[in-house]
Amino acid sequence: MMYIYADNAATTKMNEKALEDVILCMKNEYGNASSLYTIGQKAKELLEDARARIAGHVGSKPNEVYFTSGGSESDNQAILSAATIGEKTGKKHIISTMFEHHAVLHTLEKLKKRGFEITLLPVYSNGIIKIEDLKNAIREDTVLVTIMFANNEIGTIQPIAEIGEVCKENKVLFHTDAVQAITHTNLNFHEMNIDMMSISAHKFHGPKGIGALIVKEGVKLETLIEGGAQERNKRAGTENLPAIIGMASALDEAMKNYNENNEYIKSLRDKVQENLSKISHSKINGDIENRIPGTLNICFEGIEGEALLLLLDDKGISASSGSACTSGSLDPSHVLLALGLPHEVAHGSLRLSLSVENTMEEMEYIGEAVADVVSYLRNMSPVWKDLQEGKRNYVI
Amino acid sequence: MMYIYADNAATTKMNEKALEDVILCMKNEYGNASSLYTIGQKAKELLEDARARIAGHVGSKPNEVYFTSGGSESDNQAILSAATIGEKTGKKHIISTMFEHHAVLHTLEKLKKRGFEITLLPVYSNGIIKIEDLKNAIREDTVLVTIMFANNEIGTIQPIAEIGEVCKENKVLFHTDAVQAITHTNLNFHEMNIDMMSISAHKFHGPKGIGALIVKEGVKLETLIEGGAQERNKRAGTENLPAIIGMASALDEAMKNYNENNEYIKSLRDKVQENLSKISHSKINGDIENRIPGTLNICFEGIEGEALLLLLDDKGISASSGSACTSGSLDPSHVLLALGLPHEVAHGSLRLSLSVENTMEEMEYIGEAVADVVSYLRNMSPVWKDLQEGKRNYVI
Repeated sequence: MMYIYADNAATTKMNEKALEDVILCMKNEYGNASSLYTIGQKAKELLEDARARIAGHVGSKPNEVYFTSGGSESDNQAILSAATIGEKTGKKHIISTMFEHHAVLHTLEKLKKRGFEITLLPVYSNGIIKIEDLKNAIREDTVLVTIMFANNEIGTIQPIAEIGEVCKENKVLFHTDAVQAITHTNLNFHEMNIDMMSISAHKFHGPKGIGALIVKEGVKLETLIEGGAQERNKRAGTENLPAIIGMASALDEAMKNYNENNEYIKSLRDKVQENLSKISHSKINGDIENRIPGTLNICFEGIEGEALLLLLDDKGISASSGSACTSGSLDPSHVLLALGLPHEVAHGSLRLSLSVENTMEEMEYIGEAVADVVSYLRNMSPVWKDLQEGKRNYVI
Repeated sequence: MMYIYADNAATTKMNEKALEDVILCMKNEYGNASSLYTIGQKAKELLEDARARIAGHVGSKPNEVYFTSGGSESDNQAILSAATIGEKTGKKHIISTMFEHHAVLHTLEKLKKRGFEITLLPVYSNGIIKIEDLKNAIREDTVLVTIMFANNEIGTIQPIAEIGEVCKENKVLFHTDAVQAITHTNLNFHEMNIDMMSISAHKFHGPKGIGALIVKEGVKLETLIEGGAQERNKRAGTENLPAIIGMASALDEAMKNYNENNEYIKSLRDKVQENLSKISHSKINGDIENRIPGTLNICFEGIEGEALLLLLDDKGISASSGSACTSGSLDPSHVLLALGLPHEVAHGSLRLSLSVENTMEEMEYIGEAVADVVSYLRNMSPVWKDLQEGKRNYVI
């Protein structure tokens, strides 16, 4: 049986070069980067080299890169830092969207208890905000706009440069969760007027447990994890050098072949999309154009996503219905609900997220496997029976 | 030239077996442990297996182990959780010691702004608290006692079981930072009546960037990093499986040879201690008996610790003057000041922290090297000249 990994938005297999660099570092460079002696200073040099390489790829200065344990920590720290700035300046309004990652939404919930008002912009059926809505939402007391660069479930890309421009004009801080976007779409921290940006290595074939928060010089970052003086006093804990080096190497590799990789991944996605679109009463979620190349999110009426995933797993295909972070939950995806999909349709979603490791042959296989499984499940589905017999109306 | 790593309290070289397991996991088990499909479920099984192994070694239940990015994060989360409990029950007093790690002290500073009163117990010249002091400090509104198991600079071990007993009797939560203690002294979470305990893998030859907070069932943990539902909703972020497995393996290895390892390390420490004690006007810091076996902290009058370290580095020896987290700071160690040492003596400190990788031959070499360097530095020191000529009085 074929084995196909098609859940690269959840996590990725490590790049060979990055893995090699992590192993070498674990073996040889065990010095504490905050120590004075030679092997500590060597570790420090490697750390700063990695920081500079990452800064180069995202369009920031090296001293604007703060290493964290990953995307969630970065999101938390960014938003809480903006909140503290807001409390000091009497600005307690934050704008975000209805379909952010839970690392953002749950942190915003927390801030409500500290007296913050939160406006969640609609994302419409195409999964993209309207700049007019943002302009209208900004108030005198708005301290922060936090809008994800590319959505983790449907892959839609927001007009980040325009959002950055609006925020700059209105002197509002702009944070973006770029965890899904980096290495898959054009991204430049300073050119796009971003103030804070979250990234995570394991989404681009780097190691797990490492990420960064990029923070514009002059924006006062609060410390989320207190302790030692690491990361210029903004993030305590012994520097995780092997992971940091692995992150820099994975990013180097991804950016070296940026155009080629993304064109290839897009061709895979387009192929599987073409195949799956032939299934009746199916619907592709999110804008067809403004999407990162590897992600396809599609709903099939009359079936349950979880059953679909388990049967695809039996056929050797690893895919998901949405975010891995909420799997096990019976609620439909908040992202798909934000697009205006009814509950029963949102329940029947499939997310495929591809990487350079996938092949065109796999896309053919997925197309056939999904068609088979959808057909099998619909044959057993009372809802589908009702739809077929005209006792219910099709939604899609 | 010999190369000797003698700073294992800062960080350690990875154990071979743990490294191998990390590499295998990075190569093969890249599935997201929160995903439904087979490779995700396989990852989940490995995760839970690692959790159970760690729980077994610390004397807790598996569901009491929460993985974090390391000791600092664990300390922050434990103390902030207790603070939230305190706020809900009207108890806003916390007891700690003067020589805790900064991950604890800085978090307590933060809590002062939330209206908490902090009592820092004295640790006396031997670096050990008195149980009577603790009993006297506990008030009606005390919510938490946080006292480190073994000190990171001088290695002294606190009477943890007695502290746990007192806290239990007084219905006060007890957190201990056991980062330096685990694998080096007898430790049992439940038997010692500990409510929350921080550990970190890279201090016992495991990977960097991973640790755990052990939390007694029934103690309400607050989420420090919000987002996905990982770690039973208490710690968001994709599970760092390779590091978690490496942590479990490193702990397995350390505990398998617990007695043998610690006896060997102690024999090394005693040897180097014997050699260094011969240097005039030197003083061993902290209790001689109640210390973890690998740590030796010694002061030499009339010299600067930083110069000592740099010259030892020239001779191939990696050592420190105290915590790596504050290196680069010109202030003397807060730990040594807490012991009552005057500034000028605290400045001349050397911390050697040994592991199973060290040899007796190295201890002889260190003894000679330190004697040479201390003598060299004293010959150049105006303070030493004054001491010798009777213009100043020796302190030690």
